[in-house]
Amino acid sequence: MNDAREVVVLRYGHRPGRDDRMTTHVGLTARALGADRVILPDNAGQSAETVRDITDRFGGPFAVELRDDQKAFVGNFEGVVVHLTMYGERVQDVEEDVREAVGLDEPEVVGEASPPRDLLVVVGGEKVPWALYERADFNVGVTNQPHSEVAGLSVFLDRLFEGAELDREWADADRRVVPEAIGKTVVDAGEEVADDDGSDPAGPS
Amino acid sequence: MNDAREVVVLRYGHRPGRDDRMTTHVGLTARALGADRVILPDNAGQSAETVRDITDRFGGPFAVELRDDQKAFVGNFEGVVVHLTMYGERVQDVEEDVREAVGLDEPEVVGEASPPRDLLVVVGGEKVPWALYERADFNVGVTNQPHSEVAGLSVFLDRLFEGAELDREWADADRRVVPEAIGKTVVDAGEEVADDDGSDPAGPS
Repeated sequence: MNDAREVVVLRYGHRPGRDDRMTTHVGLTARALGADRVILPDNAGQSAETVRDITDRFGGPFAVELRDDQKAFVGNFEGVVVHLTMYGERVQDVEEDVREAVGLDEPEVVGEASPPRDLLVVVGGEKVPWALYERADFNVGVTNQPHSEVAGLSVFLDRLFEGAELDREWADADRRVVPEAIGKTVVDAGEEVADDDGSDPAGPS
Repeated sequence: MNDAREVVVLRYGHRPGRDDRMTTHVGLTARALGADRVILPDNAGQSAETVRDITDRFGGPFAVELRDDQKAFVGNFEGVVVHLTMYGERVQDVEEDVREAVGLDEPEVVGEASPPRDLLVVVGGEKVPWALYERADFNVGVTNQPHSEVAGLSVFLDRLFEGAELDREWADADRRVVPEAIGKTVVDAGEEVADDDGSDPAGPS
């Protein structure tokens, strides 16, 4: 979303069949809420295809990558690693530290902002190895309650970017939705104004 | 979460099998992020059971209800209805209006706050009828991009409550997670301090 740093979301583990929709939703949420890239396990090809298809239609830039070396990728990542887990520190307590670590903080003195660093956000799927808890610069809990990795990721990204991700503009889109009080209006991406054309982009659901 | 008003999340539509995990995650997210009750379609009994089980173990109050009259329930709801949809108005543009409508706004003059009203948040599943767009007081898009109903719900609730839901305390819990930088510590709900006991509450995943 920003040239200064890359924000990467990594889905750790995937059980084909059982996890397909959750993994797809992790990828789509990463895209919609400001990340630059998602890395999925290499057995999640179907989810990758869906996320790429949405990117083709609704715009980017957003990269989708399948990898089989997730453990090594996390270990070797040159940047800040956040691991989202219900056992972690409370997001409201550490979000400012994370923002400062990647250079998204508001400097008190002009020119005193931290330098931008890349950020890797790890979202657990099947059992996450203990080494990941130790490698992470921050283990972060969006509440310490069991709920949803998609919910945790979305609240974390919205707080990381302080809502700026909601104003993101999309490049190379075929179509876009026109926000409105009552309606379902989809127009060609270049179009400025249009009436409801009755079309319904086949979103995932 | 608050005695003054009830915040209810309603999942519209459910396809057994295919939607089980998404519906479960809608319910768990509603609970974890400050809603008081979730209403699921009556064919989502398995999801309801999971959410009730988590509430038994990790605390409440939180109610789970199965209903077969969702359309009538929405139509007759006495309070404010928000429908989350990628076609809706941008959440950043209308969140203050929603807060004001349910009496969660900050009054500029003491005593000028709006009176509390109940809030129903409708989360789409299978195709939502047009009448619901018309009944809703607010059709709201958490981005106008296709992503995840769980992501939309979680960002909406976090913004509705302005983060206060993260500090919620839980009653009648058997156990609780101790937030920490590196660890997976679960203690009896009444316990004040404890070392890592190595246990692992079977969360949904």
